[in-house]
Amino acid sequence: MNALERFSFNHATAKFWDQREAVEACARTGSGIGLWREPVQEMGLDASAKLVKDAGVEVTSLCRGGFFTDPAAPAIDDNKRAVDEAAALGAPTLVLVSGGVPAGGTIDAARGAVADALEQLAPYALERGVTLAIEPLHPMFASDRCVVATLNEALDLAAPFAPEAVGVVVDTYHIWWDPEVWNGIARAGREGRIASFQFADWVTPLPAGVLTGRGQLGDGCVDFKRYLAEVDATGFDGPIEVELFNDALWARPGAEVFAETRDAFARVLS
Amino acid sequence: MNALERFSFNHATAKFWDQREAVEACARTGSGIGLWREPVQEMGLDASAKLVKDAGVEVTSLCRGGFFTDPAAPAIDDNKRAVDEAAALGAPTLVLVSGGVPAGGTIDAARGAVADALEQLAPYALERGVTLAIEPLHPMFASDRCVVATLNEALDLAAPFAPEAVGVVVDTYHIWWDPEVWNGIARAGREGRIASFQFADWVTPLPAGVLTGRGQLGDGCVDFKRYLAEVDATGFDGPIEVELFNDALWARPGAEVFAETRDAFARVLS
Repeated sequence: MNALERFSFNHATAKFWDQREAVEACARTGSGIGLWREPVQEMGLDASAKLVKDAGVEVTSLCRGGFFTDPAAPAIDDNKRAVDEAAALGAPTLVLVSGGVPAGGTIDAARGAVADALEQLAPYALERGVTLAIEPLHPMFASDRCVVATLNEALDLAAPFAPEAVGVVVDTYHIWWDPEVWNGIARAGREGRIASFQFADWVTPLPAGVLTGRGQLGDGCVDFKRYLAEVDATGFDGPIEVELFNDALWARPGAEVFAETRDAFARVLS
Repeated sequence: MNALERFSFNHATAKFWDQREAVEACARTGSGIGLWREPVQEMGLDASAKLVKDAGVEVTSLCRGGFFTDPAAPAIDDNKRAVDEAAALGAPTLVLVSGGVPAGGTIDAARGAVADALEQLAPYALERGVTLAIEPLHPMFASDRCVVATLNEALDLAAPFAPEAVGVVVDTYHIWWDPEVWNGIARAGREGRIASFQFADWVTPLPAGVLTGRGQLGDGCVDFKRYLAEVDATGFDGPIEVELFNDALWARPGAEVFAETRDAFARVLS
């Protein structure tokens, strides 16, 4: 199978590009798309669902739910709305970023809050045919965005639930440093938990604004062929989303970023 | 035991403070000191050894060896010199920062280079009564400074050698995010590998220059009492070094930083 047939463009890679244009570019190239809640709301949920359906574009995920760790705002209702939106868009997966360590709290307590939230959301998601995908983020985000820092931790959090209800995101940018990453990928596959597979590169030196410093594929030290081989070896044959938070890319025209990203995807896998 | 009796001031916390003044401040307060190779060389090895001996100050570690992963410069000879310096200074421990991913290389290959270097250095260190302490650094440094990213990985690397030859550094700043950290500390204690115990805090938001953004104790989200309890529970009763790479601290007078740091240490453990 040609790797490009599995290419999905996460809209955040060209964050300020009009959603309609992004979907049309995906339609023209047979690509999937990862959508974000904010642009979907801006266009309207029904209009967005009609757009992707009419264009025949596969929605590979909806970003983003989560942020469960603030005791003042456990966000369950908003996450239920996000599940509904994913279902309406035909997205099989809602990506969850768990939330950070609240002021005065501990990381262990915050992790407990994530487990509690999943317990409330998993049956709701299962009923609507949406898989909640726990995304481990790089540990440099553990305090402010996501206390889930490794694939194994995400899998432990998913373990109490059916794989159709709760899976994990395998995103090279966040996990490439982990000495347990190959074991984690094998385990994720064995347990049927790979709900989303994402590519971004890790560049050195780390840009000053770490949130928006993800590298274009091929610009950093991630061995994408190896990741694809390890994930494929588990039997996973789903789409591969490219999601790059990158200030320099965001400053450029979306169509140009789309073409460059698709080319880079093909190149790092060739 | 009063926690302050275990306080050791790592010279890097007041990087530009004269080494003699730092040693004298430690002598006056019954503190230990963690020394660095560059200021030691500047004063001269013999003069530095005499300084700490005459002052009756315990040298708790020498920083820094390592950087094993550049195939063009495996650094074995320089690390042997660092072992000799540690022995001359009476430092029981040489702290090792392993090195990053060389250009065009993979992290797995770089990890293999670290294992190879340890094999060459361990007998040399053992003969001279110096323990090599593998320091896992925060994963945000994995590409440019240190491919060893977790306590468990450091312990796996140390496993082939006697605990007197190769141990690990438990530094809160680098490992606080790890879901396996409590298991890792228990294992490190069980295996007799805790060669250095260091404190620094993790502040949010992460400062732009991540290398020099370690927080003063109490300014971040690290639960130092819990770390002390977990490490003590393994039977470890050695010194606790405070090592803060922090631009704002470095800009201030060393004596002031020393006093503030010692106070913060007592406060977070009270």
